[in-house]
Amino acid sequence: EIFQAWQALQISPISQPYWQGQRLLISAGPTFEDLDPVRFLGNRSSGKMGFAIAEQAQKMGAKVTLIAGPVTLATPFNVHRIDVRSAQQMFAAVQAHYAQNAVFISAAAVADFALAQSSQHKIKKQPGQDGLTLQLVKNPDIVAWVAAQSDKPFVVGFAAETQNVLEYARAKLHAKKLDMICANQVGENLGFEREQNQLTLLSAQHEKILPTSTKSEQAQQLLAFIAEQQTSIKA
Amino acid sequence: EIFQAWQALQISPISQPYWQGQRLLISAGPTFEDLDPVRFLGNRSSGKMGFAIAEQAQKMGAKVTLIAGPVTLATPFNVHRIDVRSAQQMFAAVQAHYAQNAVFISAAAVADFALAQSSQHKIKKQPGQDGLTLQLVKNPDIVAWVAAQSDKPFVVGFAAETQNVLEYARAKLHAKKLDMICANQVGENLGFEREQNQLTLLSAQHEKILPTSTKSEQAQQLLAFIAEQQTSIKA
Repeated sequence: EIFQAWQALQISPISQPYWQGQRLLISAGPTFEDLDPVRFLGNRSSGKMGFAIAEQAQKMGAKVTLIAGPVTLATPFNVHRIDVRSAQQMFAAVQAHYAQNAVFISAAAVADFALAQSSQHKIKKQPGQDGLTLQLVKNPDIVAWVAAQSDKPFVVGFAAETQNVLEYARAKLHAKKLDMICANQVGENLGFEREQNQLTLLSAQHEKILPTSTKSEQAQQLLAFIAEQQTSIKA
Repeated sequence: EIFQAWQALQISPISQPYWQGQRLLISAGPTFEDLDPVRFLGNRSSGKMGFAIAEQAQKMGAKVTLIAGPVTLATPFNVHRIDVRSAQQMFAAVQAHYAQNAVFISAAAVADFALAQSSQHKIKKQPGQDGLTLQLVKNPDIVAWVAAQSDKPFVVGFAAETQNVLEYARAKLHAKKLDMICANQVGENLGFEREQNQLTLLSAQHEKILPTSTKSEQAQQLLAFIAEQQTSIKA
């Protein structure tokens, strides 16, 4: 209880005024790339991190648009939700909305690759067929695309890795010209499809290691960090 | 209400005594075949049909074991649930349990193929990499394996198709030597990931077209049909 009060004190003075009325675009969840009406190539992601950010930002007064991949989560109160399935659909939704938002948080686990060809009907296994070869093609890099626009918002990416997560995150921050990146260690009881998370927040100038906690608490800290970055840039 | 009463009358006299104390094994949901800790090849299936059968059978007095792929459904009351992810894991669970059951209903959408190789760490996209080729290998045919055992239970399969569903279902019934098959038309508002379903039940001797209804109602009709088949075989 004392810790929660301390947290509230730490976050509120900076982030509450910053987020009040701020327009925030969030992508969340996985994308599924259909091979046929039955089979798909998917990414493991419950969408919980992105949904937690949406919920917390709305509570801080932000006007939130949430572009969600295929997940089974309820829409947070007073959040505008757009459902998509594939990376191409998510890209189209982001393209349509990024320019009206001050901040874009790309929390979705977008598939790097889609099927080169998708069939309208279920592909039948042939008798005696022992294998199958799938040809994949690269999906659009949504977060890099937004970061490259002249009218880009403040762009926050995620790097989810099973190993060398900070190293990959720093490289991704620079290569994609993001304003900020959240390094997400994926592993035992952490990250994808879990309740607890452990993010490290990185910008060109700052680095903040968050203690392991619930995704709601990580979301609060993340939103506070964005507010600090944005306030210091403008100051 | 009159229709429901008629349904209850139609089902109860035959199926209630048959299912009382009967041991039933059900597989449900999709299987996900991991490419690495983040990516997987999946089948579209909510698991709702298999879970509805488990729930209804338990209400009719059956002792139900439910082998569930990755789904987000609550376990029906008094049902023994075993969670699995891949087709190989589902196969192992079915092999361990089939012999103790009088009936096996294979409602799972088992992936036909798995990745030839699965990586323990996230496969990194290389700079400039435009495509990826996935080599898949055939998964075990679980329902055919059970139907080929000398101590096999009464085996019920599912055929989910977007086209020519009855034709495929009849061919599958014979090729895999199943006792019964449920032809499942997959399409607009029907089948995978939907509330409503339309099954046609086929055995070597009989064919019954069920009207479109909820998965719970389809489950009741299906269990009644099995009871009729089994009772007529033994009579």
